[in-house]
Amino acid sequence: MLTSIIMETGRAEIVCTGSELLAGKLNLYTPLFHERLAALGFAITREQSSGDGLEEIGDCIKGALGRAELVLVCGGLGPTFDDLTRQAAAAALGRKLVYSKACAQVLGLNYGLKTLPPNFKDQCLILEGAKPLENSNGTAFGQVLTKNKKMLVLLPGPRKEWEPMFPDFLDFEIKTFFRRAPVTQVKLRAAGLWETTAEKLLRPAMRSFRKLSYTVLAGPGTVEFILSGDDRKGGVRKAAAACRKILGHRLYGEGGATLAGAAGEKLKARGRTLAAAESCTGGLAAKLITDVPGSSAWFLGGAVAYSNPAKMKFLGVRAATLKKYGAVSAECAREMAAGAKRNLKSDYAFSVTGIAGPEGGSAQKPVGLVYFGLAGPRSLRVFRRRFRGTRPFIRACAANFILDELRKIIK
Amino acid sequence: MLTSIIMETGRAEIVCTGSELLAGKLNLYTPLFHERLAALGFAITREQSSGDGLEEIGDCIKGALGRAELVLVCGGLGPTFDDLTRQAAAAALGRKLVYSKACAQVLGLNYGLKTLPPNFKDQCLILEGAKPLENSNGTAFGQVLTKNKKMLVLLPGPRKEWEPMFPDFLDFEIKTFFRRAPVTQVKLRAAGLWETTAEKLLRPAMRSFRKLSYTVLAGPGTVEFILSGDDRKGGVRKAAAACRKILGHRLYGEGGATLAGAAGEKLKARGRTLAAAESCTGGLAAKLITDVPGSSAWFLGGAVAYSNPAKMKFLGVRAATLKKYGAVSAECAREMAAGAKRNLKSDYAFSVTGIAGPEGGSAQKPVGLVYFGLAGPRSLRVFRRRFRGTRPFIRACAANFILDELRKIIK
Repeated sequence: MLTSIIMETGRAEIVCTGSELLAGKLNLYTPLFHERLAALGFAITREQSSGDGLEEIGDCIKGALGRAELVLVCGGLGPTFDDLTRQAAAAALGRKLVYSKACAQVLGLNYGLKTLPPNFKDQCLILEGAKPLENSNGTAFGQVLTKNKKMLVLLPGPRKEWEPMFPDFLDFEIKTFFRRAPVTQVKLRAAGLWETTAEKLLRPAMRSFRKLSYTVLAGPGTVEFILSGDDRKGGVRKAAAACRKILGHRLYGEGGATLAGAAGEKLKARGRTLAAAESCTGGLAAKLITDVPGSSAWFLGGAVAYSNPAKMKFLGVRAATLKKYGAVSAECAREMAAGAKRNLKSDYAFSVTGIAGPEGGSAQKPVGLVYFGLAGPRSLRVFRRRFRGTRPFIRACAANFILDELRKIIK
Repeated sequence: MLTSIIMETGRAEIVCTGSELLAGKLNLYTPLFHERLAALGFAITREQSSGDGLEEIGDCIKGALGRAELVLVCGGLGPTFDDLTRQAAAAALGRKLVYSKACAQVLGLNYGLKTLPPNFKDQCLILEGAKPLENSNGTAFGQVLTKNKKMLVLLPGPRKEWEPMFPDFLDFEIKTFFRRAPVTQVKLRAAGLWETTAEKLLRPAMRSFRKLSYTVLAGPGTVEFILSGDDRKGGVRKAAAACRKILGHRLYGEGGATLAGAAGEKLKARGRTLAAAESCTGGLAAKLITDVPGSSAWFLGGAVAYSNPAKMKFLGVRAATLKKYGAVSAECAREMAAGAKRNLKSDYAFSVTGIAGPEGGSAQKPVGLVYFGLAGPRSLRVFRRRFRGTRPFIRACAANFILDELRKIIK
């Protein structure tokens, strides 16, 4: 399990409505709400996903308001018959829904309508006493209702509709109503270590900062360390500085940084370019690189050399090398990286060749064995690693490993 | 929202424990439980994620048992001090925890221990009256307790520990206790259409099968149509046949099929090979192809031609073409596909070149504009499409589009 020490935060609960969440669709929103709320001094203490039914939603809201100070309900505010969150909240709280002329005016203006059609009119129903929140990307208003030191927030389901409501309205509403100490959050991202190592390294340092909360999230060969708390006396900054020192060269970025982005920034700043030669990762490393907007400024491209002919044709790997050492070998990795660099005239180039499994392993070359080449302006290094896990995990570990090594050698 | 008509199913609730689920980690398990339970005739009617606290977990269990017939609790059975699910369930139900000598014997045998250390002993505490489920990948036993026509199931948190418990024990326990009609599920996967089109096409056909449940899940240019119900009179088979007919060539596979896998199977069966030439998808299409285990049998590799030099060097695109028409053009797409096919001597090859955004668009060539080339043994076609959305969405749509066209032309 993940390490997470919760500081003194407000209690928030999330209610996600929509039968799709119970029928195969991933709930992608809870982590997003966590991030939003953490910055406002709230921890999520429970999340409920419910179907679209009136009673189900009402029951979730009632329960959540009984336990938490702040309750966010997401979804079910649309114009169709099965969007029942407004009605459910009204029934759960014993409040009426009232027609808001102000909302009607806003909709009329935004959509250039003199008279609103019936389904638009339904969008103007607001819980009695609630404050509507304008939606810059849809017709459903958000709503904020406060009562007995508690706050209920209704949000439309689509991310592009609810997300702008935080900076536009909600951050302010929550801050002014609860008057919690502002929370500062620092996210440190490191590679080349596993979760357990990260914990061992960082836990002793965190003992001096007992009022802060911290969380370690593990990825394939990467960890994210999230620190948060009241920084008015500089506690978060001090703790972050201590952690940065401990992580040292393993720290590749902060906030939403990615390994490929970190390598890219260094390349861009130095006017250097990169080429890639992938066998077992089969395009994954290039995909991670080109996930970075603007990567065409420093990434020239590369080869997905998934067969011996591709290794020879695109990268100039010699037939003799493949025959003598095989495609999964230090020699092949070396020639792949050198070939990518030579062919695209790049400053840096890397290569990955290994056995991602589940088939293809042997006693000498087991599943998870990967060789890497890394060519710089005046160097060419080879690495050998063994990863354990499923095919996707091995591939992700391999791609992250070489992107991290690349980042570190760029001077 | 997603279309989902629920047939007469049993009511199941899920309780996921672990503070990480409330602190930034995605809940990946609910969709997996949905699939397991749907096959057993149960729909998930609510999911709750709770922290690790004794009272929180107990409160979630109590609430769930009040509403549903079947309650699965996942996580918190490990050997550390913050694994409290056993204690929480005992408190919530007013049952004792009893030491199971049978469990102790199993652990002793499995780990070759004559006397168990204290944390192993805790693993042998079972709710009074519950049946322990052996764990083939860990020390935590699952538990099944039935009472008043309801069933409570405690499962260890890691997927590799709980997943084998279904075929090994749980499917049988649930089937024999509830004696529900067996449920047959068919998953049809189609491409080249959007969710709304899929609904329009399939909804009329489904009117003749009112006792079945169906769900439409949308992806980037793909949809999954999940049909389930009682097939003892052939209803599911008939409905699936009707849907297959309506979807026609848009249907690319069933169950867990992927577009790349579908194309690969056709290539493999015919002894044909494939090469790829990617610009704006930057390795994503190759990554999707090489996600398929065994893809090296038919995928030779390709070029991530993210720069003009890469397009020329790896794919033989002419400088004059790039100068006259630009990299995002039908002419460039054509030369890229032809070059990949020629250089790797493959039977098929595709190319993708476009503007993934967010920068780089213009009035003539807006963000989302993508050209594709598709070369077969005796043909070379070019496509032009415009996708709308974020950079990752545009890239995913583009990769799926060309993999689907590839699949369709393989004769």
